[in-house]
Amino acid sequence: MRVVDLTSVVVGPACTRALADHGADVVKIEAPEGDLLRHIANGARSPGMSGKFINFNRNKRSAVLDIKRPEGRAALLRLIAGADVFVSNIRPAALARAGLDHASLAEGNPRLVHCSIVAFGTDGRYANRPAYDPIIQSLSGVAATFHRATGEPRFVPMVMTDHITGLVAAQAIGFALYRRERTGRGEAIEVPMFETMAAFVAAEHLGAATFDPPEGPAGDNRLLSPEYRPLPTADGYITVAPNTNAQAFAFFKAIGRPELRDDPRFDSPVSRTANAVAYFEVRVAGLRQRTTAEWLETFAALDVPAARYNTIEDLLTDPHLADAGFWESEDHPTEGLLRRTRVAGRFGGGMRDEALPAPRMGQHTREVLAEAGFGEAEIARMLDSGAARAP
Amino acid sequence: MRVVDLTSVVVGPACTRALADHGADVVKIEAPEGDLLRHIANGARSPGMSGKFINFNRNKRSAVLDIKRPEGRAALLRLIAGADVFVSNIRPAALARAGLDHASLAEGNPRLVHCSIVAFGTDGRYANRPAYDPIIQSLSGVAATFHRATGEPRFVPMVMTDHITGLVAAQAIGFALYRRERTGRGEAIEVPMFETMAAFVAAEHLGAATFDPPEGPAGDNRLLSPEYRPLPTADGYITVAPNTNAQAFAFFKAIGRPELRDDPRFDSPVSRTANAVAYFEVRVAGLRQRTTAEWLETFAALDVPAARYNTIEDLLTDPHLADAGFWESEDHPTEGLLRRTRVAGRFGGGMRDEALPAPRMGQHTREVLAEAGFGEAEIARMLDSGAARAP
Repeated sequence: MRVVDLTSVVVGPACTRALADHGADVVKIEAPEGDLLRHIANGARSPGMSGKFINFNRNKRSAVLDIKRPEGRAALLRLIAGADVFVSNIRPAALARAGLDHASLAEGNPRLVHCSIVAFGTDGRYANRPAYDPIIQSLSGVAATFHRATGEPRFVPMVMTDHITGLVAAQAIGFALYRRERTGRGEAIEVPMFETMAAFVAAEHLGAATFDPPEGPAGDNRLLSPEYRPLPTADGYITVAPNTNAQAFAFFKAIGRPELRDDPRFDSPVSRTANAVAYFEVRVAGLRQRTTAEWLETFAALDVPAARYNTIEDLLTDPHLADAGFWESEDHPTEGLLRRTRVAGRFGGGMRDEALPAPRMGQHTREVLAEAGFGEAEIARMLDSGAARAP
Repeated sequence: MRVVDLTSVVVGPACTRALADHGADVVKIEAPEGDLLRHIANGARSPGMSGKFINFNRNKRSAVLDIKRPEGRAALLRLIAGADVFVSNIRPAALARAGLDHASLAEGNPRLVHCSIVAFGTDGRYANRPAYDPIIQSLSGVAATFHRATGEPRFVPMVMTDHITGLVAAQAIGFALYRRERTGRGEAIEVPMFETMAAFVAAEHLGAATFDPPEGPAGDNRLLSPEYRPLPTADGYITVAPNTNAQAFAFFKAIGRPELRDDPRFDSPVSRTANAVAYFEVRVAGLRQRTTAEWLETFAALDVPAARYNTIEDLLTDPHLADAGFWESEDHPTEGLLRRTRVAGRFGGGMRDEALPAPRMGQHTREVLAEAGFGEAEIARMLDSGAARAP
């Protein structure tokens, strides 16, 4: 499975990382200035190798081509002619100008799956507008969920809409490859960030506005409560989620309020949803009485879903993740000792055999061009002219 | 493509909705009490048909089986014997007790892809613990990102870890089906919510702690600023993301601070990342000067990424989504007129032909059992005994 990856920052690299983690040979095509993510995230041992770049680009190779030059563009087209999948996150107008639209590419390679990840679908008025993650969080209702919960719109402090859209794009590519095995034909896929995230938020929060006319305001109240957060205990935080009757009634007993099981506000999942804010207030008052460790022991014995609160650094020492071999140690050839997460899922059909370190810029330019059939003299000429670059 | 779907609430239904939206025949197996999501989300026209249930369960059929009874369990096994994919989100111990582990199922159906979605991987100490979305947000570092940004841990007000894990599970199933076409064999997949989300957060925020020993604290500062949110204008909110030099310098000029392009804190992507908090403060001060509409016009002319802020309800009237035909009207046979989002992506290879309304509980029990080869008398006996149920 060969993937030509003309993407940068997060949305495309998240997609192709999923493909690479599962065993695809992903060739990352970088412009001469390199993927912006090499530089804009903090934390690096050497320039252009930020931790965030490393995490989103492991298991890939990097070739640098200047596709603004005819020879660079010709090389890219030759790579795509031999690929199973071509992934881009370039604005559609620019893609068409460079002759990288599916119709042109499929002429030479009808089995090609081309996934064009875009900010906005080409069938709406925002098509070709530039966008980054916060733009999409602002438009798609992600920020609005916080407005409802706390009174102030906010972003999720992750590049969440890039990251999710990238995962959805990889999903779409998998489905297209399955179809290709059955039809013999590739296809063009367009995955727009805005529409993907609007659909994500709508599934969660359309709620009563699913109905036309609406049965009430949009929004899942259970999630939009101001107290929907890890709650303070006597010495820290805890999260507890007593959703079924068995869990809720055991919880009421544990906090010394057994009478609440007969309270009409709390006696069924439906009534607890309708009284979500009051139910959170009961939790806030109850949980302050004991320490996190005491509560965790109590709730484990009662089979009430509960968990400690982990900081980002706590993930490095979480006992379950340690048991599961989640953190792997990697000796990166230029960046030294690194921490690497294993692929979260387990697959009976196997995964990638060999882990590749995240590439330096253009580390594989020569070998990738040679594999595509360019001769030594041609490669040297491209490197001389700047159409291709290598360290 | 036949999918037997023994899942409930969000993580499993989000996975099988992706499969159903792309054309799979998904048979949702419900316990006699029905999927909890039918009841716990607010907004419904009739009991058991909440908006949230409808949104996550469109394009599926529903059969009610009591798998605690031997005939109910036997019927489920017969359905799985004829399926391509079996998806469950049941704790592994319960799955094995019911004989629904992959090893048992593959005996009769070696081409079966079984995706077991679990809260925690079976190779760690939290295996078999119950969990819901906030538990995973608390453990995986999602809540911690807010702690860093605002001083208080918070959940994203969506069932985000369920929803993302479901999408990743559908991705994994797509990859396994592609492999099956090439090897002829199905496989067992385990997709754990905790590990999936810990990997999601780590890719985003491991940052300087990717290195061992760390080069600094974990966390991508650009995203963890208190001001990382839609910012107030003279009359509302706006989001603006000037990331490249061209965008940033045009932005500085627009807010009347052209001199900032030469300020060493803001003169390159690297310096703006290092001074993320100060850069946000510049934006906060600048944007208050004009209205949202004025800024949008200015930034559009300058090709600076900017967007208005949409509430959840605003999605229903967003002009781009209207152009793109994002909202479809559905006349549901029992629930009346509904709004339905189309699948966000566009697929040259085609999508599902016929849209199915979200099913009532057990609406398809009879037809699904008949398709699996049960005779009329057998089906009647199962309905009489309560091993199967239909309206």
